[in-house]
Amino acid sequence: MPEDIALGPAPAAPDFAPHLQGPRISMMTIDGYVLSVTWVDGLTHRFNRFFLRENHVGDGIIHPQTRERVLDVALMPDDLAIAAVRGEGEAVLVDWADGVTTRHAAGWLRDTAEGRWKPDAPLPERTPWEAAAMPEPLSFDGPAVMVDDEALWDWLRATWRHGLARLRGLPVDAGTVQRVAERIGIIRNSSFGLSFTVESKPNPDSNAYTAGALTGHIDLPTREVPPGLQLLLCRENTCQDGFSTMADGFAVAEAIRTEDPDAFDALATLSWNQSNRHPDYDYRQCRPVIRLDDEGRVVEIRLADFLRAEPDMPDTEVERAYRALRLFMMMAQSDRFICRYPFRPGDLVIFDNRRILHGRDAFDPNGGVRRLEGCYLDTDEILSRLRVLARTRR
Amino acid sequence: MPEDIALGPAPAAPDFAPHLQGPRISMMTIDGYVLSVTWVDGLTHRFNRFFLRENHVGDGIIHPQTRERVLDVALMPDDLAIAAVRGEGEAVLVDWADGVTTRHAAGWLRDTAEGRWKPDAPLPERTPWEAAAMPEPLSFDGPAVMVDDEALWDWLRATWRHGLARLRGLPVDAGTVQRVAERIGIIRNSSFGLSFTVESKPNPDSNAYTAGALTGHIDLPTREVPPGLQLLLCRENTCQDGFSTMADGFAVAEAIRTEDPDAFDALATLSWNQSNRHPDYDYRQCRPVIRLDDEGRVVEIRLADFLRAEPDMPDTEVERAYRALRLFMMMAQSDRFICRYPFRPGDLVIFDNRRILHGRDAFDPNGGVRRLEGCYLDTDEILSRLRVLARTRR
Repeated sequence: MPEDIALGPAPAAPDFAPHLQGPRISMMTIDGYVLSVTWVDGLTHRFNRFFLRENHVGDGIIHPQTRERVLDVALMPDDLAIAAVRGEGEAVLVDWADGVTTRHAAGWLRDTAEGRWKPDAPLPERTPWEAAAMPEPLSFDGPAVMVDDEALWDWLRATWRHGLARLRGLPVDAGTVQRVAERIGIIRNSSFGLSFTVESKPNPDSNAYTAGALTGHIDLPTREVPPGLQLLLCRENTCQDGFSTMADGFAVAEAIRTEDPDAFDALATLSWNQSNRHPDYDYRQCRPVIRLDDEGRVVEIRLADFLRAEPDMPDTEVERAYRALRLFMMMAQSDRFICRYPFRPGDLVIFDNRRILHGRDAFDPNGGVRRLEGCYLDTDEILSRLRVLARTRR
Repeated sequence: MPEDIALGPAPAAPDFAPHLQGPRISMMTIDGYVLSVTWVDGLTHRFNRFFLRENHVGDGIIHPQTRERVLDVALMPDDLAIAAVRGEGEAVLVDWADGVTTRHAAGWLRDTAEGRWKPDAPLPERTPWEAAAMPEPLSFDGPAVMVDDEALWDWLRATWRHGLARLRGLPVDAGTVQRVAERIGIIRNSSFGLSFTVESKPNPDSNAYTAGALTGHIDLPTREVPPGLQLLLCRENTCQDGFSTMADGFAVAEAIRTEDPDAFDALATLSWNQSNRHPDYDYRQCRPVIRLDDEGRVVEIRLADFLRAEPDMPDTEVERAYRALRLFMMMAQSDRFICRYPFRPGDLVIFDNRRILHGRDAFDPNGGVRRLEGCYLDTDEILSRLRVLARTRR
């Protein structure tokens, strides 16, 4: 299949990831519906018949250009059977009872068995922080990130780990924030536009567009999935006040879990309706403030307290829910958790909008101009970019 | 607060929804932390002290323009206490022990207690269908939907109920599909753009851009949340083949639940990695094909079989998972479930991309031109539009 050769480093693999030459195979056996592969390092992995058959590139199975499958899974024979198996260079060739032969890169088989395809494989651990450990956001060189994939990789890994990171030295013109976002992926659209300007405006349709303080919050908690990342660029700031604030919602949640388990339970199980207020839009979601995964790990904070509306719980739980919520908001705004810093022109902060509570102090709208430009990305985008960058980092 | 009067029909309510004049209040009593309101129809509802205090419009509590809260929930006094309560016209006035008075529309109190704010309140039931009941998508008048909110309401309610509906008689120019989408809400961006053209292309990066058949699938199963709605407009079609297909994934799932419970269990519990294949993007998600809510109802189908990659399950489950998957795909493509229809210029189909499996027959790329234009919306958008339209429908 010479048309494949130019498409990627591993022509016999059904994706665009490069698959290393791993350990050599010492033995292959056919065990009913399964091909068993034993490697020279002693490990054995098992591959199901259907999985092998449908992951051959070309010949009406995987389209060699799109790398999407063409074969209809429903039309494989029920009695699909492996007749023989053999090695050929770095590939494994499977001969099927119905006369077809499929080809599989040994490196792809090994990577598959080891789970290198798992969606979280290239992600660093997320480490909660309190204010003492984060006096200001970690800074990276903005212009370098725009042109250098190593700098982009370092910045995005820090963003995932800490939930926020800063770029410095960027141009302050309109469009910069979108260009930075597009280094990562596809900008998320919203009722505020593909990008938005944060400044004090007449006839505001959001508290963000006043000069008032904003308590720590996430953006768009009223959507099924809030944006995973927010980017904010400071384009102009001649105000002496209006400092920016960030708090790690995961750290606040973990502190409450330890120090007030009843409040933690209320925050993780009792839902509030968060509801946007607009003449032409009406987004709502009923969710707890803290979302846990199946193992009980904190995986999402969902709260913009100024959008919080009805308690979605039995009457008898409401007083308890308010107690927990007030504790959460008090801690999230306390010196223990708040990273408070001046926002300078040319600085851009990126933060995990489903983890970090961002806010600002009030400013005097007559004391100067404070103009930010922001945009959103879904969590999908940072994960996709990290995976693509990881392809060449093996 | 005369500045409120022009902002909405219910000046004392913290949102933009009109709150009807409900039954009159017959009695109000203060019961510790709770205000009990008994109406002339005999019902009694209870309102928590914090909830009342923080839902007054104006006076540093709810911003009268943005209708977002300004009051910091953490700063309300712990010993907040209702001193007295009284009626004034259609409003309830609460006098607080610290000297503050708050004002609440009686209609808002009643609507709140009755749960009219619940996110699902304006939605019709979703009714599964088989092909016999849906020989073609239900049709609505395209130009009417563009200008008439009643027509928009009817079309969107049908879309939610059946998972698909068709508009006819639309102009076929570029941009029509976006204009229709914007009647609903904010277009979802993706790696295919804000809108995309579906036709046979050289160097395709998706099977959609070939002339091949596409088995029934949802779009973007590789994202954390796939688009809730897809709109496809037929701009040109001179092919005799390439018919469009739709199947109700919820109906297929329910049939399997009844007819093959083991397959249903495998589809609802065993995850597959769905993985896009692209040199510059790498979106992945491991999920079961059928998602159930806490009550066991089918709420989402997630499968584009040509993007399905590794089984994310123990080796011992893989053969069983393939059996269930092959059954699902066979049923979804059977005459029992497939609605197959010609796609005519000026027709637009909208469908619930997390429920309906859409596909097409192969066509002869030399037999004519087949050009569609499509775009996506999140589920948030149809719900928001239905809620806004419902405001004037009480």
